Amino acid sequence: MPDQKDVILHGVAASPQIAIGRVFLFEDDDFSMSLVKRNIAEKDRAGELKRFNAAMDKTRLELKSSYEKINEILGENYAKIADVHLLILGDPALERDVKFAIEAGANAEYAVFSVIDKVVKSFEKMQDEYFRERKQDILDVGKKIIAHLLEKQKRTLSDIKEDSIVVAHNLTPADTVAIREKFVKGFVTDIGGKTSHTAIVAQGLEIPAVVGLKNISHQVATGDLIIIDGNKGLVILNPTPETVEKYKTESALLSEKTKELKKIKNLPAETPDNYKVSIFANIDNPDEVKSVLNNGATGIGLYRTEFMFFNRSVLPNDKEHFENYKKVAEEMSPYATIIRTIDVGGDKLADAGLLNFDAEANPFMGLRAIRLCLKYPDIFIDQLKGILRASAFGKIRLMYPMISGLDELCEANKILEKVKEELRKEKVAFDENIEVGAMIEVPSAAGIMDVLAKELDFVSIGTNDLIQYTLAVDRVNENVANLYDPLHPAILRLIKRIIEEGHKAKIDVGMCGEMAGDPYYTPVLLGLGLDEFSVSSAQIPKIKKVIRSITITDAKKLAEDILANADRKFSSKLLDKVQSKLN
Amino acid sequence: MPDQKDVILHGVAASPQIAIGRVFLFEDDDFSMSLVKRNIAEKDRAGELKRFNAAMDKTRLELKSSYEKINEILGENYAKIADVHLLILGDPALERDVKFAIEAGANAEYAVFSVIDKVVKSFEKMQDEYFRERKQDILDVGKKIIAHLLEKQKRTLSDIKEDSIVVAHNLTPADTVAIREKFVKGFVTDIGGKTSHTAIVAQGLEIPAVVGLKNISHQVATGDLIIIDGNKGLVILNPTPETVEKYKTESALLSEKTKELKKIKNLPAETPDNYKVSIFANIDNPDEVKSVLNNGATGIGLYRTEFMFFNRSVLPNDKEHFENYKKVAEEMSPYATIIRTIDVGGDKLADAGLLNFDAEANPFMGLRAIRLCLKYPDIFIDQLKGILRASAFGKIRLMYPMISGLDELCEANKILEKVKEELRKEKVAFDENIEVGAMIEVPSAAGIMDVLAKELDFVSIGTNDLIQYTLAVDRVNENVANLYDPLHPAILRLIKRIIEEGHKAKIDVGMCGEMAGDPYYTPVLLGLGLDEFSVSSAQIPKIKKVIRSITITDAKKLAEDILANADRKFSSKLLDKVQSKLN
Repeated sequence: MPDQKDVILHGVAASPQIAIGRVFLFEDDDFSMSLVKRNIAEKDRAGELKRFNAAMDKTRLELKSSYEKINEILGENYAKIADVHLLILGDPALERDVKFAIEAGANAEYAVFSVIDKVVKSFEKMQDEYFRERKQDILDVGKKIIAHLLEKQKRTLSDIKEDSIVVAHNLTPADTVAIREKFVKGFVTDIGGKTSHTAIVAQGLEIPAVVGLKNISHQVATGDLIIIDGNKGLVILNPTPETVEKYKTESALLSEKTKELKKIKNLPAETPDNYKVSIFANIDNPDEVKSVLNNGATGIGLYRTEFMFFNRSVLPNDKEHFENYKKVAEEMSPYATIIRTIDVGGDKLADAGLLNFDAEANPFMGLRAIRLCLKYPDIFIDQLKGILRASAFGKIRLMYPMISGLDELCEANKILEKVKEELRKEKVAFDENIEVGAMIEVPSAAGIMDVLAKELDFVSIGTNDLIQYTLAVDRVNENVANLYDPLHPAILRLIKRIIEEGHKAKIDVGMCGEMAGDPYYTPVLLGLGLDEFSVSSAQIPKIKKVIRSITITDAKKLAEDILANADRKFSSKLLDKVQSKLN
Repeated sequence: MPDQKDVILHGVAASPQIAIGRVFLFEDDDFSMSLVKRNIAEKDRAGELKRFNAAMDKTRLELKSSYEKINEILGENYAKIADVHLLILGDPALERDVKFAIEAGANAEYAVFSVIDKVVKSFEKMQDEYFRERKQDILDVGKKIIAHLLEKQKRTLSDIKEDSIVVAHNLTPADTVAIREKFVKGFVTDIGGKTSHTAIVAQGLEIPAVVGLKNISHQVATGDLIIIDGNKGLVILNPTPETVEKYKTESALLSEKTKELKKIKNLPAETPDNYKVSIFANIDNPDEVKSVLNNGATGIGLYRTEFMFFNRSVLPNDKEHFENYKKVAEEMSPYATIIRTIDVGGDKLADAGLLNFDAEANPFMGLRAIRLCLKYPDIFIDQLKGILRASAFGKIRLMYPMISGLDELCEANKILEKVKEELRKEKVAFDENIEVGAMIEVPSAAGIMDVLAKELDFVSIGTNDLIQYTLAVDRVNENVANLYDPLHPAILRLIKRIIEEGHKAKIDVGMCGEMAGDPYYTPVLLGLGLDEFSVSSAQIPKIKKVIRSITITDAKKLAEDILANADRKFSSKLLDKVQSKLN
């Protein structure tokens, strides 16, 4: 079997474990997607030609009906637009060249693509802009033929009806909301890094993910067998039976290890010398509560509420918010749930059709999170009302994202007070003593933590953004991924400062960024005095294991040494040493 | 004269002074640009119809020649694309409706636009994507007719041959490079803020600018008379003769004041109690050196070298760099020139056709400045070689932009050492003791200033970026412009820390961001201990005036009080008080 040979691709290990399964290719609308050249055996070429001819017939019919539709509404002159597409379709050279390519062994999709592409390129070469733009007409005809060949329909992840590994260029919050947990066994994407949305969701679902594979979505088709190794960041295409066997064994071993780990899940998060911290969970939607409790969390440290705003045509009202949060609060009782108010950019709401909003040049530094809420208070008020109402049914704490200064915090609190007043008037019950906290994720907030702490009941350090802004590194941009570094001395100093100032103000300091969920960093965070680790469910036992293995004395010594040296290489060497002793 | 009435628009005051003059509209390719409805007097309507008919004839001829051109290259079927555009053009309804609109008093451009727009909207309403996209064909025909009406050609700023106020949607570095200083009397743009490129260039040229006017580029036409008040951030369209007179008087007064100010330009930058600082200039290109010396700067604190990379088809070689920097170094002698290595994003070089580079989602946090140089060392090496060679001809200091950590600095220095070694081998002279500094503009660099200072000969605080990243606010995004705040206590603390750590390491700390050039902030920066203010030439006398008016004792007291309170409102109140005493 000469064409069965492991093809190993290296990406970023975004969520651990191993999965072996069939690909579900989640395609975007890019014309070039899935148009990989495949060699068609000689005996199958006649069938391929037939497919092409059928697609041509369907395209012709479709264009004719377009002609009639335009003719009816706008008259014959405009209908000629469809006519010209019929003419392009009828070009004998097009048909001849595609047939020639198929006879030479190409699959029909690729044959159409390559012939159309050649014509498009001749248009592109012309000097005049008018000609260059005409290529769209040719492309549209090509797209139509290929769509018929692929019988392509826009599919969503909710269409997955059997065990699959999702392969995509990228997965957005709007995409993953539709996931049916039961059938999705892993994620593989072209772009993204350790803290990308895909990584976070995979960790939440406790399934493996490998991201940043550049163009894997062009290299596989739905139904292909692949292996993903989320520990090493590998994807294996076309695996040999021996490789499959090897990974099955390894996967079984890993499950065994996971089971071992789960034994400690209900033991306290306490160091051998009796220093206790809290371990909370991050969740993306209410369905995760089961897994949260199952993994031994004693609260939800970050309930991301963005999913409430996706895949819908109108903004959620306060009742929807209420019902959702009430459910989580009740299920988590007596543990507390920290609900973070909406933390998206205006662009995302615009994509979802919920807001009129022009694209921003740098959306990560644009109108998002609390800024968006203060600019569009209606969105905010409905959510606050829902949160307050739910607070009568379980322990809820409220958290604002992306606070950058005192003014923003005061403005948000003013709106909160108004909503409370309204509820009091309406005689609707809510927790009068609801605690209000803020994410510390903008460097300026860290810089005035002493000022903010006086106005807050708790804070949670959002390391993903804090690192991104402090280092000026877009955390999902591969070009600069090498610079994104939780051990940068400036980051560790900021974390230390936030914790110290929090403790001076007698409030708890938590952390809900990915750094908190990576057991590698646990010893140093413990040593810096972090009170609460909020992590994806699957990580809870691992973090707990580290905490139960190192004394607070050693952790403090480690943090002191690292801070005193302020040298990235020294820090990782020292941490490696501590980690090797733990394992 | 009922239609002569001041129309006052409010924008952001980006560069002071007043200009009264005719608009030069710098248009982009947006179809809707300059299509403002104008009422045509009854007697002129026949002429307007004639213009329309002439434009139709020209469009018809053009499409026919397109038909032939495509026919020749790609054959008749594709040529039919132009044919269908001819059919659209020939639609009797189009002609009829446009004529009707003109007869009702609309100008021809607007009449065509409105009729085409109606057809486009019917296409947009259709459900099928295929139909929706066909609107492009209609739009293209409309654009052609309008282009002929406007006799529109893509013009660059180098086409300006008489005194003009440039009005544009936005001005990029690539645009402003082509400016002929002599004729440009002011800038007005739709977008941008106080620290946008447009603002910086205007200040450098000592001409007024008002930015952030939303859609002024749609409201004026080339040749319109307008007034811009760069002090108050106002633009007046359609000014009455009285308003013009009023502004002429005010402008004369301002010139008088400026003359007064210039008298102190050669006096030392020294407080009444004999504390001295340096005032340097920021420049964008070598032509500014004259203005630098003219305004009494004692050095160039920031020579932005980006212009070397624009409006060209190949990257500059070391010789070009050398000749350029040599000229500046010689002209500035005996004063020093701080040359900053290239500080652009990969996107900008890609736009200029100098690099293959995919767009980034958040370019401000992407591959840019020193990151780009370390990734593409050839670009960097040629520039370093040019700088080193020029250092034999005058006092040059070298500065890296966007250093975020020690590793980057070491890597850059390693390349610098290699280039030096090469020059030594080639027996090419350079300053063996050339000083190497860094911009402190990434929050993490400020956070480890103690570490970096040990490896540097000087630093310059880049407040534009430092504020932007620290507050997570894109400084050119109007949506969040209200959050961009040099007086945010986190910013002032960072500046204080940078200065303190610099002084501990016995190196000078300068500042070359816009904050340094705004006399409002001078007292607090002086009090924080800043050694060197690097500002646009026009600002030098103003900054010097403040420094010569306040004692270092008072300035220090002010800075201490502001830091002790860490409250934005308190800070601006106190600073307002100090400023009112100075004036």
